[in-house]
Amino acid sequence: MNANESFIAAQAQVDNASVQPFEQSRRIVVGGSRPDLCVPMREIAQADTPTQFGGEKNPAITVYDCSGPYGDPEARIDIRKGLPALRANWIAERGDSEELPGFTSEYCRRRAADPDLAVLRFELGRKPRRAKPGMNVTQMHYAKKGVVTPEMEYVAIRENLRRKEFLAELRVTGPQGEKMANLLSRQHPGQNFGAAIPDEITPEFVRAEIARGRAIIPANINHPEAEPMIIGRNFLTKINCNIGNSPVVSSIQEEVDKMTWSIRWGGDTVMDLSTGKNIHETREWIVRNSPVPIGTVPIYQALEKVDGKAEELTWELFRDTLIEQAEQGVDYFTIHAGVLLRYVPMTASRMTGIVSRGGAIMAKWCLAHHKESFLYTHFEETCEILKAYDVGFSLGDGLRPGSIYDANDEAQMAELKTLGELTEIAWKNDCQVMIEGPGHVPLHMIKENMDLQLDWCKEAPFYTLGPLVTDISPGYDHLSSAIGAAMIGWYGTAMLCYVTPKEHLGLPDKNDVKAGIIAYKIAAHAADLAKGHPGAQIRDNALSKARFEFRWEDQFNLSLDPDTARAYHDKTMPAQGAKLSHFCSMCGPHFCSMKITQDVRDFAAQQGVSETEALEKGLETKAVEFVKAGAEVYRKV
Amino acid sequence: MNANESFIAAQAQVDNASVQPFEQSRRIVVGGSRPDLCVPMREIAQADTPTQFGGEKNPAITVYDCSGPYGDPEARIDIRKGLPALRANWIAERGDSEELPGFTSEYCRRRAADPDLAVLRFELGRKPRRAKPGMNVTQMHYAKKGVVTPEMEYVAIRENLRRKEFLAELRVTGPQGEKMANLLSRQHPGQNFGAAIPDEITPEFVRAEIARGRAIIPANINHPEAEPMIIGRNFLTKINCNIGNSPVVSSIQEEVDKMTWSIRWGGDTVMDLSTGKNIHETREWIVRNSPVPIGTVPIYQALEKVDGKAEELTWELFRDTLIEQAEQGVDYFTIHAGVLLRYVPMTASRMTGIVSRGGAIMAKWCLAHHKESFLYTHFEETCEILKAYDVGFSLGDGLRPGSIYDANDEAQMAELKTLGELTEIAWKNDCQVMIEGPGHVPLHMIKENMDLQLDWCKEAPFYTLGPLVTDISPGYDHLSSAIGAAMIGWYGTAMLCYVTPKEHLGLPDKNDVKAGIIAYKIAAHAADLAKGHPGAQIRDNALSKARFEFRWEDQFNLSLDPDTARAYHDKTMPAQGAKLSHFCSMCGPHFCSMKITQDVRDFAAQQGVSETEALEKGLETKAVEFVKAGAEVYRKV
Repeated sequence: MNANESFIAAQAQVDNASVQPFEQSRRIVVGGSRPDLCVPMREIAQADTPTQFGGEKNPAITVYDCSGPYGDPEARIDIRKGLPALRANWIAERGDSEELPGFTSEYCRRRAADPDLAVLRFELGRKPRRAKPGMNVTQMHYAKKGVVTPEMEYVAIRENLRRKEFLAELRVTGPQGEKMANLLSRQHPGQNFGAAIPDEITPEFVRAEIARGRAIIPANINHPEAEPMIIGRNFLTKINCNIGNSPVVSSIQEEVDKMTWSIRWGGDTVMDLSTGKNIHETREWIVRNSPVPIGTVPIYQALEKVDGKAEELTWELFRDTLIEQAEQGVDYFTIHAGVLLRYVPMTASRMTGIVSRGGAIMAKWCLAHHKESFLYTHFEETCEILKAYDVGFSLGDGLRPGSIYDANDEAQMAELKTLGELTEIAWKNDCQVMIEGPGHVPLHMIKENMDLQLDWCKEAPFYTLGPLVTDISPGYDHLSSAIGAAMIGWYGTAMLCYVTPKEHLGLPDKNDVKAGIIAYKIAAHAADLAKGHPGAQIRDNALSKARFEFRWEDQFNLSLDPDTARAYHDKTMPAQGAKLSHFCSMCGPHFCSMKITQDVRDFAAQQGVSETEALEKGLETKAVEFVKAGAEVYRKV
Repeated sequence: MNANESFIAAQAQVDNASVQPFEQSRRIVVGGSRPDLCVPMREIAQADTPTQFGGEKNPAITVYDCSGPYGDPEARIDIRKGLPALRANWIAERGDSEELPGFTSEYCRRRAADPDLAVLRFELGRKPRRAKPGMNVTQMHYAKKGVVTPEMEYVAIRENLRRKEFLAELRVTGPQGEKMANLLSRQHPGQNFGAAIPDEITPEFVRAEIARGRAIIPANINHPEAEPMIIGRNFLTKINCNIGNSPVVSSIQEEVDKMTWSIRWGGDTVMDLSTGKNIHETREWIVRNSPVPIGTVPIYQALEKVDGKAEELTWELFRDTLIEQAEQGVDYFTIHAGVLLRYVPMTASRMTGIVSRGGAIMAKWCLAHHKESFLYTHFEETCEILKAYDVGFSLGDGLRPGSIYDANDEAQMAELKTLGELTEIAWKNDCQVMIEGPGHVPLHMIKENMDLQLDWCKEAPFYTLGPLVTDISPGYDHLSSAIGAAMIGWYGTAMLCYVTPKEHLGLPDKNDVKAGIIAYKIAAHAADLAKGHPGAQIRDNALSKARFEFRWEDQFNLSLDPDTARAYHDKTMPAQGAKLSHFCSMCGPHFCSMKITQDVRDFAAQQGVSETEALEKGLETKAVEFVKAGAEVYRKV
């Protein structure tokens, strides 16, 4: 009995670590135009500024929350039942889809009928849905028709986060307000690389971006449990987390735990890249319990079905796999349809050949059959399938570079151009599309990559893996790739696929997943700051203000990973009192530079004139007063 | 008895963890024009390519080595005696300096005479040196006179690393050679931001860069133990590691251990930022045992001498501290001479005021006395002192931003301009100078910062702390700042001051020091790749080739941190056999994309025609042969 077989569906449990409330956080809900449209957010309370710093109130800070019901302390979650189907009514009331009598996929029906799989099976209490004949259920379809769906309104509310607070802060009078305005005016001088981020995200703006193909809402009608989110360069930069078992290690429970763990730390979408056996059942558990969109690479499962023999793959088998997964509720598919026969030889002189699994599978198939890939020749038919469920395309970069040496080479660029052509075909079918990107790219070649993608793929959202900016960092590739990710995010990439410290070495465990996510949250947020997203900086400002005022707990709570921040602080200064102390361990109690700055401000305030004036008037007496009043750097309150 | 007092000099030991040889590495020495000029490097041996991939020999890869005698398995190190004085003859034979009868500094003599400090004291077996009256001993002085010193030749050899191998690789014929040439031609299209990196670093090039002020060799004549290294944007990007005890924690032995640990992982210089008691003695131990330049912030110690009361600081006290440290052998001093009285009020409207300790000390002093800072008014006199020992200036950015909100603001820029003026005064005295930079800067403001520094400071080397690209990453600030560091390194920063995961939270321990260093080695190397340093990519290419050929051990050994890479791999696939396996844990044994690429190559080779031709001719028969020959993806050899 292996790890998977030891999974007993009846005992499946929600991972406790994934549902611990964050300190000083509470769940708030922002309502929309209809009662069933409620967008959850996390609000982090702050303490008042200590009296000696002015004693003012500090507002609660609202943050984007990917954790779905797992982040709601009131929610009662039973992963054996799955999450509530929050979008079920929206989908049904459009009247464009119908319940099927059962699963269409032959493979799917075979698995469902196998009594040996009962211990692994998630029991879905409803039937799969599909577009009615001749209808198109995609968000792009509605967007082009001028219809704002509830999904679009949902993401508009979600993305609007903190913009009002930001604009309010801009209206602050006095030096702080001037400074904020000055800061904002410096945000855009030719540095946002063509992004057009409005001050307020309206549902209409969302609709227009989707209609234009510049953003997608991955939202399969068979994944009604998912909370809508949007991927596009005029929205907040998103991150994806890969999970999935392999033939070597890990079980279904582990993968479900990784999913809930991922979204706790901010994973916006999750890709299930399982390659072992029972991937059908693993996926079912993940989708039913995931409040974020799930992506897959269907060719991986197709390959399992032919026992790893790429040359035995057929369009029919692949087609059945697409339908199997679409009816399970997968929200986007990576499809390597740009690996053309004539591009394969371009990889022979590479340092690292073809490193994408999907790319390698198709390259092998092409060579074995000496034919164009069935992913390419059947692309229109694939569009027909995807639009019947609103599964998004994530056009895979099967020829992405696997080393700095291979970056931006002929093979990569040839495929990218083809992906641009396929994008237009998909759009013609109103299918939502994003484009996958590398990989390994040195700093100075990243912009070229982004620019060509925007041009050739007509601004369809770019979704990149890193890129790593050097190859010599095994064990730290999350970091090496976060550098490239921050940069390409700034240049316009809409979603960053995380890399964990185990990349190139082994399978990530939960710690690695978290390390990868935090690295990518940093990269994504850095990109948002640089792109001038109104509101992105509110959290930075709040944290820095807390830091300056020695509000240690607020500093921890506002950080991306309060647990680690708190633990690191406690390691140096374990006493509870230290968290109230007005100094940090670098300087110690006798001298503190932040305290001195406060003295500078206090001095100015006491004198009743601005410091500049005081200095300009050359009032030496003030200096004497200062020495008298402030002789102790560390004045007790 | 506190931690420091428990340090017994007689028991001081070299840290074993810092002297463990790296697997498959050996120390090599490259000789110069004189027998006592020997530059150590580390050479990493590689296994042959496995037979099924072609069975070729792989060359050993030489890497830059900061570890000094600690990296030499033959060396017998006794930290109670200190390292050999490798530069002693070079310094003496110039005839420009003389041995002093004893230490000039009063404070120094007092410490030396205190019997209570005997248990802490390092017993130096030689006298301090100083320039003979009227003479100037700096490297810049000789460079301007057209003299190539042994130090300059040493760094030329050291920096030339791998350039010949690189040029050899460029001359490879066939597709690999073409590709390499193509890669190189794409390196520079307006992307290296004015850097002028030659194919070969000659001693004359080094001299010219130093004479121009564009590079420095920090090399105090009282630190003859140090191996010369160079900081400048036309050389490899360097990193600095901060160590130092605080009033709260850590002992002398710990700090010496951190220094040896830092250089093991690639720290190019080390700053001792101790602020507690016994910092004089701590520094002596560090300098005597350090093969890399040591930097300090003398105002920290001066402040200790006045019990933390900044307003009681005087030029005389500071002057004595400069001399004390210069005669101990500190190689560069951070001096915050650009914090002018009129700039202080500019910080009052900041989010985080003055976060530099040195800046805050001087701001307080200026306000208390209502006078211009003595660091500024006595700058010429400071030059006189520094040039008598060849201590480099690191002009401190006392008004650097401590938050994204404060980035590139009026206060920061005003100070930077002043640092440019001071640079010219220092250069007039033939003093070597670098300029410190921030801090916290969002991605889109980094370039502006670099450009202004190059302009206002006339290309004096920039030395930045990060910058952090967001404030919301406490616990991960090494990562957040490595993003900014890689970028500013690419734009032209010569040395990157590391940040550890404990930044803003607590004092770094050895693990944190290592995490900070590896993050910064990645950033520095990424910058070198992007700037097109000839040879920088050799290590990436070798590692990627090893990865592609499943030479796991070579992959580990070529990485920045073989221990972590190996441990991560072993966690997923612990068996020794796994390191010989031709698959990785992500895909498992049944399918491997790298193996498929090899099949593509083998196929081409077997057919005796290039793949392109084969495909163009449309030889369908070849496809049939391929299926016959390669039906098994995983062919046994």
